[in-house]
Amino acid sequence: MKSLEERIREIEDRLEIYNLIAGQPPSADTGAGDYTASVWTEDGEFDRGADFPVPRGRVAIAAGSSNPEHRRAQEHGIAHFAGLPYVRITGDAAFAISYLQIVVPDRVGPEFDVPNHGKTRGFHIHRISANRWDFVRGVDGWKIKCRRLRSLDGGEPAREILRGAFAD
Amino acid sequence: MKSLEERIREIEDRLEIYNLIAGQPPSADTGAGDYTASVWTEDGEFDRGADFPVPRGRVAIAAGSSNPEHRRAQEHGIAHFAGLPYVRITGDAAFAISYLQIVVPDRVGPEFDVPNHGKTRGFHIHRISANRWDFVRGVDGWKIKCRRLRSLDGGEPAREILRGAFAD
Amino acid sequence: MKSLEERIREIEDRLEIYNLIAGQPPSADTGAGDYTASVWTEDGEFDRGADFPVPRGRVAIAAGSSNPEHRRAQEHGIAHFAGLPYVRITGDAAFAISYLQIVVPDRVGPEFDVPNHGKTRGFHIHRISANRWDFVRGVDGWKIKCRRLRSLDGGEPAREILRGAFAD
Repeated sequence: MKSLEERIREIEDRLEIYNLIAGQPPSADTGAGDYTASVWTEDGEFDRGADFPVPRGRVAIAAGSSNPEHRRAQEHGIAHFAGLPYVRITGDAAFAISYLQIVVPDRVGPEFDVPNHGKTRGFHIHRISANRWDFVRGVDGWKIKCRRLRSLDGGEPAREILRGAFAD
Repeated sequence: MKSLEERIREIEDRLEIYNLIAGQPPSADTGAGDYTASVWTEDGEFDRGADFPVPRGRVAIAAGSSNPEHRRAQEHGIAHFAGLPYVRITGDAAFAISYLQIVVPDRVGPEFDVPNHGKTRGFHIHRISANRWDFVRGVDGWKIKCRRLRSLDGGEPAREILRGAFAD
Repeated sequence: MKSLEERIREIEDRLEIYNLIAGQPPSADTGAGDYTASVWTEDGEFDRGADFPVPRGRVAIAAGSSNPEHRRAQEHGIAHFAGLPYVRITGDAAFAISYLQIVVPDRVGPEFDVPNHGKTRGFHIHRISANRWDFVRGVDGWKIKCRRLRSLDGGEPAREILRGAFAD
């Protein structure tokens, strides 16, 4: 039987984890390296699959969102868009399964006009991925220990990540 | 005046409901029938509108996400993507109003290259729907009693669902 | 050191703010003026950038979602779609940084058939924006004091909003 204090703490944990997931799009879309370094563990691992480098450690991960190529993506227009995550906490460890879109401006299509909402060429979903996040609690709060994502293109790797939501 | 324990319990209820909504995309996208059966009431009803069958009962609803047609959708690439839901709890009942996208890979368009984010043909929103969820609390936690969704195609049925957020 | 009651209250604040953000899409997509007026401060300001009027005060803001042009957008099909927001509370003030899509039906493209999910012409992201919300707590709960949004089209103003998530 948990005490009220323990129950409150677990709720606060949950909300802290929501903010860690919600903070990823603004940090990726602005190249906020200091923030990124502050939310990963020293030995964190960010795995986007075989087509991308797999940075290890908070320094390398933070560098990934502030390199010149990433900066070009920002100037081209890029938005990371996070759906509602599924989160489970067990003591000082937690995981989340979440969906993430990468959205970019459409530069080639026709313009569309929506009443009261202006005219645009629209935006395009460049990628939608299944994400697994593993978190640990340290002396200075929750940190991201591992994040693994795979494109939801019909392949098995993304489904394997999603199935993690229901594993015991 | 609610006690601290009652207030904590209502918060836990809210977070449990967030996870029920967040668990739907991974279960639909992997055909997790056992999980689906475990989160619906015995007499649950899942209503996607006149163009689709309306399964009644947790067994029928769970079967819907593991049939061969649904499996074909998964192999083609399908992602359910849940927005932030509006949730209200009243004792042992609750409802949520949420938006949901169904996203599929674009198989016909040109490839686009985004710096630091690879090359894809992009993804396409196949449907976006307004969802109303009704939940009840039983002896083994919160369950989905009814979920009704309608396409946000400009028609009245979707708006009627959304207006439920503000009804007393 | 916060008391249990203070900690519970801050959690309730957080959940109330989630609902304020989650309530915006249903109210915008149905023109729920009374609801809109009820969640803004008397002197609230809604700033969508230089291409749009900047209504000031809850009455003017509520009128914006029930004018004939906005009504035409609803009949054409319009869906506001909110991602997971980043939220921080400090006493009786709070802010959130969130992403929002405006999605409309595609009226011109080819039809696509997804197994078990019907046939549609699909939907189109008309705009994706970075949003900053400032909230204050009054005698009747949390209200929106200011909401500012800018299109994530590669320009600096949207990034400036996003950076607010990490400012002290």
